[in-house]
Amino acid sequence: MRMYEIIEKKRDKKELSKAEIDYFITKYSQDEIPDYQVSALLMAIYLNGLTREELFHLTYAMAHSSKMLDLSEIKVPGKYIVDKHSTGGVGDKVTLIVLPIVAALGVGVCKMSGKGLGFTGGTADKLESIEGYQISIPIEKAIRQVQDIGLCLISQSNELAIADKKLYALRDLTATVESIPLIASSIMSKKLASGVDKILLDVTVGSGAFMKDLESAKKLAKTMVAIGKDAHVETKAVITSMAEPLGRNVGNALEVKEAISFLLADENTLMSDEMADIREVVFTIAAQMISMSGICEDIEQNKKDIARVILSGEAYGKLIELIQAQGGKTESVYVDWLGKNVEFPVLKEQVTFMKEIHAQSTGYIVSIDSKRIGEALVCLGGGRKKKDDVIDYAVGFEFNKKVGDKVKEGDVVLRVLYNDKQYFEDAFSYIEDAIYIEAIEARVAKSLKAKPHVLDMIGEIDL
Amino acid sequence: MRMYEIIEKKRDKKELSKAEIDYFITKYSQDEIPDYQVSALLMAIYLNGLTREELFHLTYAMAHSSKMLDLSEIKVPGKYIVDKHSTGGVGDKVTLIVLPIVAALGVGVCKMSGKGLGFTGGTADKLESIEGYQISIPIEKAIRQVQDIGLCLISQSNELAIADKKLYALRDLTATVESIPLIASSIMSKKLASGVDKILLDVTVGSGAFMKDLESAKKLAKTMVAIGKDAHVETKAVITSMAEPLGRNVGNALEVKEAISFLLADENTLMSDEMADIREVVFTIAAQMISMSGICEDIEQNKKDIARVILSGEAYGKLIELIQAQGGKTESVYVDWLGKNVEFPVLKEQVTFMKEIHAQSTGYIVSIDSKRIGEALVCLGGGRKKKDDVIDYAVGFEFNKKVGDKVKEGDVVLRVLYNDKQYFEDAFSYIEDAIYIEAIEARVAKSLKAKPHVLDMIGEIDL
Repeated sequence: MRMYEIIEKKRDKKELSKAEIDYFITKYSQDEIPDYQVSALLMAIYLNGLTREELFHLTYAMAHSSKMLDLSEIKVPGKYIVDKHSTGGVGDKVTLIVLPIVAALGVGVCKMSGKGLGFTGGTADKLESIEGYQISIPIEKAIRQVQDIGLCLISQSNELAIADKKLYALRDLTATVESIPLIASSIMSKKLASGVDKILLDVTVGSGAFMKDLESAKKLAKTMVAIGKDAHVETKAVITSMAEPLGRNVGNALEVKEAISFLLADENTLMSDEMADIREVVFTIAAQMISMSGICEDIEQNKKDIARVILSGEAYGKLIELIQAQGGKTESVYVDWLGKNVEFPVLKEQVTFMKEIHAQSTGYIVSIDSKRIGEALVCLGGGRKKKDDVIDYAVGFEFNKKVGDKVKEGDVVLRVLYNDKQYFEDAFSYIEDAIYIEAIEARVAKSLKAKPHVLDMIGEIDL
Repeated sequence: MRMYEIIEKKRDKKELSKAEIDYFITKYSQDEIPDYQVSALLMAIYLNGLTREELFHLTYAMAHSSKMLDLSEIKVPGKYIVDKHSTGGVGDKVTLIVLPIVAALGVGVCKMSGKGLGFTGGTADKLESIEGYQISIPIEKAIRQVQDIGLCLISQSNELAIADKKLYALRDLTATVESIPLIASSIMSKKLASGVDKILLDVTVGSGAFMKDLESAKKLAKTMVAIGKDAHVETKAVITSMAEPLGRNVGNALEVKEAISFLLADENTLMSDEMADIREVVFTIAAQMISMSGICEDIEQNKKDIARVILSGEAYGKLIELIQAQGGKTESVYVDWLGKNVEFPVLKEQVTFMKEIHAQSTGYIVSIDSKRIGEALVCLGGGRKKKDDVIDYAVGFEFNKKVGDKVKEGDVVLRVLYNDKQYFEDAFSYIEDAIYIEAIEARVAKSLKAKPHVLDMIGEIDL
């Protein structure tokens, strides 16, 4: 078998065999195929696509290119270990909220999370805004932790799916990143290698996500669900909107605090308009995960149980257990609305400056471009331009108004928390361009506010 | 400017600017862009094509990527230095015949020729089958030789169009060779760098050529003519058939001998059926070159002059002058049909074995697959599998019968001349598969024999 002929076949839109794909992935993992041949193949795949068979073989070969985890020894109430993966967004703190909830209800979760790059944040970074939290722990220790407390949240292991790591680095330099089959196989290869039984995907869509339109998001979701099916790992995908940032806070420590607020909410707060977007996404995803775990298939019942473990404090307790198990510092803090002291993580949240951003006109907020907000956060040092950039966990934005809200000229739309004056101007230009205010009718504004955040659900598919 | 964005643009079918193409070619020539980025771009070009503007900028940038020759000091009767280039074929000895003819009529020719690779031969190899012939001489010496005798035939200079050299090597490893715009720019960049005033292209078509069908051949021809026009270097293309091998001999020394027979022919031989295919192609190309040189635009008059310099021996004399000027050995040999001694090149023509290949049935030869014949030659050692293979100049095939000829079972169709028994079997299986005999009607056979070898002529084009 020769790499040349593999390139030639894909170039000519012919289907590659399992043996050809295995050859390419195995030899490339062993540094026996030069990058220049692989990049030609990647461009041919980008432009000519992959069949469902090819895609499965590629993903399977990448998953098996190095160590595969075995989670079968873990005993938890849920029959299946369920993973949750988001394709990334701005203000996306869903993982931080969902995982303690489902773990409190008996779902075993062994979650690996990546670092953020560019305008989307990573859950790993959010957790590292907690003093002492160890994101990189040995996988054996993580598995024991899942057995003990039902939950771990660690960084993506460098030992899993090494073919994906090499391919991703090359794609990043050869303009072959934005390919649905290549994105799908990259995500799914890591999930398959991590040994989970079931996968719930949150495919985000909108300016602040990787997929810019619903059609692409659905295509990516269906592609990953099909790979899961072919690999006999049940996979479902929820498509959620990332048109405006999710929730009211953007920034690592700020998002941890917002997640805590949600998990410590009383009934009124939990059901408030302010929490509506996060609530919709969290309840949908958590209820599906509980169903997939084999604990209870009744989605409505699961939603009731979710509300129960939030209001009882069990879900928050699970978050604190997780943080403490992985070395994160906590301290006792008096919480107003609960009228008592609770353990609170110690956050890297020191900022020197705060600036209010005011509405430039009167009307309604018609859109908040989440990509620009994500880029503004990178300007302030709260995200990475390059892989090795050091993050300022404390900086970020607190939104006072969101899409559909009425504003008068001069009203505070958001607050910017930052540490370095020299970067503020760059961030400000992104923020200015991100907020659109128009004098629309009240009923139009109301419909903007009422737009759903969960846009679709891709489960069993026929292909 | 970043290479990433250049790849991205071509990937997305956007037009690259002159500045972007210059950047890519200049930086790649200077080893400042890695191969893996260039191969991704080449695959995007292969699949998405190039606009006429892009193609011209690419060819121009490659031509100027290193030294450009200046032939303007050469004074010959023809006003313009005319180059002749063939896209290659099996049994293609046209260059060896045409160049002495046009030089004898005053056209200045400074011709660089490549080595053969795979099933098509190279004129450089054919000349090297002459004892002592120096194909690699300094370009300054070659220019003086054109001034002195009107003609040189040297190997493609490594100093010209170095970007093409790097790109070709990469294309050869990444399945991006067979792309019309990339083939066209590769050929034309070398021609433009060689400083000629006009270019006559022989675009071959058929199994024994790079272009397998007339449509592709026309497309390649038009593409190169357009580049020539944009570069203000008048370019014409003749499209010739390479369905069966050209002439009766295939193999390096054997083809030199066939070229000599043509140049030493008397009137009957020159006009014989046996010479028909070579005569058609040679007269068409030579007459065009004479016209392009500014000597005489009357094609019919040129054809008369061509016949005259062949029959007078002037064209053959020019070939001997060329061979002697470049160090080739000659000796006095008695030629039967001329009834006198003439100078003859000393050829590397020693073979140990000869085998006759017989017709397996009675009927007419309906086709001779020239690609298979070319591959059989490679098996015998008469062509190269790899760039650095050493050639056996003496081996080859003498055809006794050609397409349209009547054969009886057991008739000799061709003779195989070879030196190494161990390779004969491989060659034989190609030869067996190459010859098709069918019991067709005589008038069908006649029409097969009468098929033209010059299929089209691409001159001034509107694009």
